[in-house]
Amino acid sequence: MAEEKYAGYRGSTLDWLKKQGLEVWDEIEVTKADSSIKGVILPRNELADPNFISLKLSTGYNIGFNIEDVLRVRKIGRFQGKYRIPKVEIAQKPALPFVPILGCGGTIASRLDYQTGGTIPALTPEELFSSFPEIAELARVETSLLFDIFSENISFGHYVKILTEIESLIQNDAPQGIVLTHGTDTLAFTAAALSFSITNPPFPIVITGSQRSSDRPSSDSFFNLYNSVLYAASPKAKKEVVVIMHEKSSDTSCTIHRGTRIRKMHSSRRDAFKTIGGSPLGRITERKISFAKEEENLSIEVELKDKPCQITKKFEEKVGLIYHYPGIQPGVLDYYIEAGYKGIVLAGTGLGHVSSNLIPTIKKANENEIVIVTTTQCLHGFTGLSVYESGRQLQKAGVVSVFNILPETAYIKLAYLLGNYRKTEKIIELMKQNLKGEITIREKFQEF
Amino acid sequence: MAEEKYAGYRGSTLDWLKKQGLEVWDEIEVTKADSSIKGVILPRNELADPNFISLKLSTGYNIGFNIEDVLRVRKIGRFQGKYRIPKVEIAQKPALPFVPILGCGGTIASRLDYQTGGTIPALTPEELFSSFPEIAELARVETSLLFDIFSENISFGHYVKILTEIESLIQNDAPQGIVLTHGTDTLAFTAAALSFSITNPPFPIVITGSQRSSDRPSSDSFFNLYNSVLYAASPKAKKEVVVIMHEKSSDTSCTIHRGTRIRKMHSSRRDAFKTIGGSPLGRITERKISFAKEEENLSIEVELKDKPCQITKKFEEKVGLIYHYPGIQPGVLDYYIEAGYKGIVLAGTGLGHVSSNLIPTIKKANENEIVIVTTTQCLHGFTGLSVYESGRQLQKAGVVSVFNILPETAYIKLAYLLGNYRKTEKIIELMKQNLKGEITIREKFQEF
Repeated sequence: MAEEKYAGYRGSTLDWLKKQGLEVWDEIEVTKADSSIKGVILPRNELADPNFISLKLSTGYNIGFNIEDVLRVRKIGRFQGKYRIPKVEIAQKPALPFVPILGCGGTIASRLDYQTGGTIPALTPEELFSSFPEIAELARVETSLLFDIFSENISFGHYVKILTEIESLIQNDAPQGIVLTHGTDTLAFTAAALSFSITNPPFPIVITGSQRSSDRPSSDSFFNLYNSVLYAASPKAKKEVVVIMHEKSSDTSCTIHRGTRIRKMHSSRRDAFKTIGGSPLGRITERKISFAKEEENLSIEVELKDKPCQITKKFEEKVGLIYHYPGIQPGVLDYYIEAGYKGIVLAGTGLGHVSSNLIPTIKKANENEIVIVTTTQCLHGFTGLSVYESGRQLQKAGVVSVFNILPETAYIKLAYLLGNYRKTEKIIELMKQNLKGEITIREKFQEF
Repeated sequence: MAEEKYAGYRGSTLDWLKKQGLEVWDEIEVTKADSSIKGVILPRNELADPNFISLKLSTGYNIGFNIEDVLRVRKIGRFQGKYRIPKVEIAQKPALPFVPILGCGGTIASRLDYQTGGTIPALTPEELFSSFPEIAELARVETSLLFDIFSENISFGHYVKILTEIESLIQNDAPQGIVLTHGTDTLAFTAAALSFSITNPPFPIVITGSQRSSDRPSSDSFFNLYNSVLYAASPKAKKEVVVIMHEKSSDTSCTIHRGTRIRKMHSSRRDAFKTIGGSPLGRITERKISFAKEEENLSIEVELKDKPCQITKKFEEKVGLIYHYPGIQPGVLDYYIEAGYKGIVLAGTGLGHVSSNLIPTIKKANENEIVIVTTTQCLHGFTGLSVYESGRQLQKAGVVSVFNILPETAYIKLAYLLGNYRKTEKIIELMKQNLKGEITIREKFQEF
């Protein structure tokens, strides 16, 4: 069976494997022009890039190599650990709430094979249950993979795809809640995009991810997914976009973050995600959901609360995010003007300032009807262009101070507003308003 | 006396004040095309921009207005609080260590006048002592103002000016230590620039600033300056570039940070400065300096320790810092290539990744001999381009992963290396080495 020997491979990689007489679980040495690597051929997700073959290295990491780069390949041995996902039929319990899981490239769940160290994403409910049978006790789960790419490549087109799927779920199904699994690198941007694009969703929308690939003993994928499904299936859950990730480095609790005030603050730690400038919505400890009392700091604009559910799927992609640094030249801004951009978010210094040598170019951008807003690269605290004369000059040049919106959230919000509103005045007015908890009245005192 | 009536004003503003019949401490209403403001005319630092007049607003903030923008001006009244800096001659105590204070635009110290709420920077030792007489007990202080601009405008030219002054102090004086006062917005960049440019300074170089202007009751300027002078005057102090700022929101202690691992993490709080990914060097509590034990995490490269003091004053200004965001276009990079840049620092996602659509342009930049390094926009944690295939592609395109150097520090380090070394291989080799504590062996576990 091709499925067994070449699990997940197709097209050129399938041909290549056959030609080389190799199959899944063979240990090989691959020589490329610049390096050589040894590892075990892993099964591969059928939706992944067809030019790559996955190897499990002895370090425990997986790596992909492009068959076009291979100068030589040599079979070293074969792992005895026979890998098979036991396609266990676990009876869905009809009484449980329905929770679809949408895969956006992050590993939803993996089955570990300790003999090879190999891992396969579990994508069907059966595979999922065989990895994490506990989840079957929480909800009737149905999984679908929307796309499978590294999260640094996720952008507006993918947001639209997710929104379309959510729209379809709203129209055709009646889930209790939904869970999206997503790579962590740009998870916060996607969370902001869904937060602004979906007003009053009829169910909770939970985004989760994993900082450690699920074949490492320290993996957080089960803990995060379990708590996300638990939350999505709960009638207590808030009907809005939230991010649920490890609260601490240990498996004690998960934090429930609002989608607009979150940031990945560590490149590898499991508790990398933090709500900045406010309290998280709550936490899940030992299967118990609790909400924070300080929630008023993060309230969603009241006037939106009575509106019906609405999904927009438009973003203006001609928006840039410029991080200010000493010596930054006006030419950086000129690029955006000349390329026909409609909006620019500055991550300014301190209260949102930028070097005064940029002011003439900012004026030019403003004359070109480019909306320019400023945030603080400090991440914590508010912008304020009225405090110093230099800030007032920026205001005069047309820069809009957007309080304590995070730079990344401001970027997504501006793309959303420019995609959905025509009048500059309206866009500026809405940039300065708290629509989805992205601007807080005051920041809770917290260590940072 | 002109000094009394028009204290600090000269040139066009002096003429304007005389023509309008106005003088310092008059309360006026100024009407401009876009706004009108009311406030009290403040004395002004003679080195400040000659086109501006300073007003104290009723909010307690100072503001400057350009006389060219004034449509109408109206005198409302006059503050009775007579302001005068008492030019007290305080005998310098010859037995105390000599500590020059170099002003770089931040307020060194100010004298409060509670009747007007007005403030004047105290720039001479006499003025300084009259504001903060306690400092005379710590050191023989001598002050000089190197420049007086908003810190968002401080860049490489100013670093050279500071370095030249420090070089002269080394050659001509024998200070126990020196203190620089600096606006907080770009203080971390300047600290990094001095750290890399000065190897084995013969005395401690302390940079400090203030988050709240000194005419506000919550001002931190005295506390920070006092502790900075105390440290600079102490034989216990480390002979390297440090930043000394409030540790907490209250006046309990100051933190001693190494100049290469610091970041302003809050736009307004007094404890805004944090050592990222490591322990600070130490703290000062109740006049006592204590150093952290975890200092090994932040050690300066050993091989430099035996070298004589060396100051370089060269930076390559054609260096850019690009913050990655979803949807970023290759054109952003093209700008830097076309403008003849020599180096680019990426603030990549997670482990230092960027969207794969940038890779062809990164290759082109690499072919143009532009040094491209990547850091993590998470700020905490390490980069790693060997973990995922996408990272390996970046490496192949020529991107250098620089571990856990902060993006801002990497930017300054690259400008420093490109200014002082010719060979690309050497520059890349040094970018990956820990020269001044900017790369730590591992990050101390800390909350963030």
